[in-house]
Amino acid sequence: MNALIPDSSFPRVLIIGGGFAGINLARSLQNKPFQVVLVDKHNYHTFQPLLYQVATGGLEPDAIAYPLRKMFDRHKGLIFRIAEVNTIHPEKKCVTTNIGNIRYDHLVIAAGSQTNFFGNEGLSQLAQGMKSVPEALDLRSLILQNFEEAHQLEEETDIDRIMDFVVVGGGPTGVETAGALAELRKHILPKDYPELDFDMMDIHLIEAGPRILRSMSEKSSEDAFKALEKMGIHVHLETRVTSFDGTTIKTNSDLEIKANTVIWAAGIKAVNFEGLEKAVIERGGRYKVDAFNRLEGYEDVFVIGDTAISFEDPQFPDGHPQVAQTAIQMGKVLGKNLIRMQQGAEMKPFRYADKGSMATIGRNKAVLDLGKLHLGGFIAWMGWMFVHILNLIGFRNKAVVFVNWVWNYFTYDKGNRLIIRPFKRKEWGKVEG
Amino acid sequence: MNALIPDSSFPRVLIIGGGFAGINLARSLQNKPFQVVLVDKHNYHTFQPLLYQVATGGLEPDAIAYPLRKMFDRHKGLIFRIAEVNTIHPEKKCVTTNIGNIRYDHLVIAAGSQTNFFGNEGLSQLAQGMKSVPEALDLRSLILQNFEEAHQLEEETDIDRIMDFVVVGGGPTGVETAGALAELRKHILPKDYPELDFDMMDIHLIEAGPRILRSMSEKSSEDAFKALEKMGIHVHLETRVTSFDGTTIKTNSDLEIKANTVIWAAGIKAVNFEGLEKAVIERGGRYKVDAFNRLEGYEDVFVIGDTAISFEDPQFPDGHPQVAQTAIQMGKVLGKNLIRMQQGAEMKPFRYADKGSMATIGRNKAVLDLGKLHLGGFIAWMGWMFVHILNLIGFRNKAVVFVNWVWNYFTYDKGNRLIIRPFKRKEWGKVEG
Repeated sequence: MNALIPDSSFPRVLIIGGGFAGINLARSLQNKPFQVVLVDKHNYHTFQPLLYQVATGGLEPDAIAYPLRKMFDRHKGLIFRIAEVNTIHPEKKCVTTNIGNIRYDHLVIAAGSQTNFFGNEGLSQLAQGMKSVPEALDLRSLILQNFEEAHQLEEETDIDRIMDFVVVGGGPTGVETAGALAELRKHILPKDYPELDFDMMDIHLIEAGPRILRSMSEKSSEDAFKALEKMGIHVHLETRVTSFDGTTIKTNSDLEIKANTVIWAAGIKAVNFEGLEKAVIERGGRYKVDAFNRLEGYEDVFVIGDTAISFEDPQFPDGHPQVAQTAIQMGKVLGKNLIRMQQGAEMKPFRYADKGSMATIGRNKAVLDLGKLHLGGFIAWMGWMFVHILNLIGFRNKAVVFVNWVWNYFTYDKGNRLIIRPFKRKEWGKVEG
Repeated sequence: MNALIPDSSFPRVLIIGGGFAGINLARSLQNKPFQVVLVDKHNYHTFQPLLYQVATGGLEPDAIAYPLRKMFDRHKGLIFRIAEVNTIHPEKKCVTTNIGNIRYDHLVIAAGSQTNFFGNEGLSQLAQGMKSVPEALDLRSLILQNFEEAHQLEEETDIDRIMDFVVVGGGPTGVETAGALAELRKHILPKDYPELDFDMMDIHLIEAGPRILRSMSEKSSEDAFKALEKMGIHVHLETRVTSFDGTTIKTNSDLEIKANTVIWAAGIKAVNFEGLEKAVIERGGRYKVDAFNRLEGYEDVFVIGDTAISFEDPQFPDGHPQVAQTAIQMGKVLGKNLIRMQQGAEMKPFRYADKGSMATIGRNKAVLDLGKLHLGGFIAWMGWMFVHILNLIGFRNKAVVFVNWVWNYFTYDKGNRLIIRPFKRKEWGKVEG
């Protein structure tokens, strides 16, 4: 069965994924002699860097997600479909999806990455990922339901366990989530739950490496570490989670934590598809591409964003960091290269321009690296907010996030505490809303 | 098993339901010598009059729902629990819930109403209700998914059927939903779905009685009817839906409509509980109460809001209208009466003060009755918005709704078009988000 997609006189670029890479590629092909077909399993683009704020009640999904059709409503000829791709058939130049086959002239895989539990069955069943809007909303419900349920427990050890949170992974997402939980504990939860004793609520952050925020400077790592400890978060370095059975987290050290909730921000793996040679898959499931993001050994298949790895950039011989900036830049450069290719001009190799990195820790606290410049505290925090608002798609989303943050800042409150997706831990099965 | 609820030295008022009736009762008992225990199956209060705007993408849930714990965080001694009540044991003065038994000194049933399909099995399986936030979000996903799916259909009759909507029930909810669908058709959907022909999108409103907005004046009914027809909505009066099989709606006349989506706003029934005599149940499942909202034949059980019916108000010999104002006023009056009762004073009978009624139809169009005054058009529309914003709980919600409406008005856009709860029609089973 073929999906019903009208042909045009232009060669078709089929883009899998409406993340940062996919939308930037699509934009750069607007008004160019290509027919762009974009597929995604959701009808919206997600601004992933702020997902943790949806999970912790600071923002509603509409603030950080943007309908893909609306994004491209002036891009005449772009065709969008909600579809999940299963198999790629490079020899037939088509892909198989749940809505039928879609042919292509040039295929671009921009499918992003998903939570990586490194094959640990127990963790993948019981720990909470945070890579999509539905996952973030589930986590929000779970956090709130823990405190509701705590009222029905008699044993102090049970209450203690349901009020504790373990965040695994000391990258920006893990640090930001742990920080947001500490803010909830300090300013919001005690007002909502006066019957509970919040001295019992422990927050742990577990990192396998020797420091948190590994991708940032040592100074920023250290600043962030100190800030988290000051907020009462237990940070465990050089510690690897080995198992979680729903009540106890075991690690490779003698650290053992009793807690019901594990938030997993410890790793990602690229989304893969059937039909491509296994040999092109590198570490983390990433597809190996050349300097032009062309998939190794395939003529008309390109890969951009988290899903790709290139060893051709002299500045980044081990591959680029899997962050939004890489995806954005790859999308834009590939767009230009496809246009060059069509004009018979030579393509230009991708070179990543590092625009710095940052992470927020809590109210008035963030860390920011920009080349040799390291900022912390209030200025870094303002910088973090400014950059994130600037990068959101659409004026409405920028305004909604800005107003929410101003509101939350001055009221010490977060308005979004509705349990809309009642969530039972995975072993109990999900409950219908 | 008993739910863990600490006792106080004051007599306990147990309120079932955090709707308009329940929250107004709880508020009027603040700082009075009662221990108030409030239970609800959600952790938030829903402003039901605006649910249709959540369903049609105009508002996010956080704009019209308000966390109950936050509402009462200054009400010392009020205890809130998420719980579903199954059985009432008047002889033991306790109720059985999913979190255990809860004893009471005074029980107040304020459980509201639910969608009434009048026993029609097919309709209850296949038609969409709109009485809760999850239902409204499901409906929003369903509306958007219809247009996504339309792209995958080849037969024109199939496309036509998936683009058509039938709203059953000509009360305010039905009228407002049909109007909002017409606004979507006019201003928003054609931009999002340029491949579809929106002349194929038919909107039907079916009403069993001789006029829509039956509870309002004949002038308002007529104005609303004309406005809906002008917006291209097919209004069918004196027509009763007899069956729906997922593709065809049959009625008691020769009207037969081919459509996949039926939105049911044609009736409500009160929520009932096990353990009470069947004799106290009147039409619509409503519990018969005396002039003080005391359940007939029970000493310590009161009923307020949609769940109650009283024949003791001389102005309303057939019972009061099941609207927000009735619930609000009953909650407040019962609060005062419980205080009087405790002081040994005489209770005062409930008298309903009609504050008028209104319904919005679309952009710049509404109807409003206030005694002998009937307003229509832009002034009524401004009045409708003003009253609804005024009645929302909390400054944040008022501000969010106001800003959204101003935004939607001037941009001819509605921002909330994310399919967050992927929804398959009921026969296909729900899909996990």
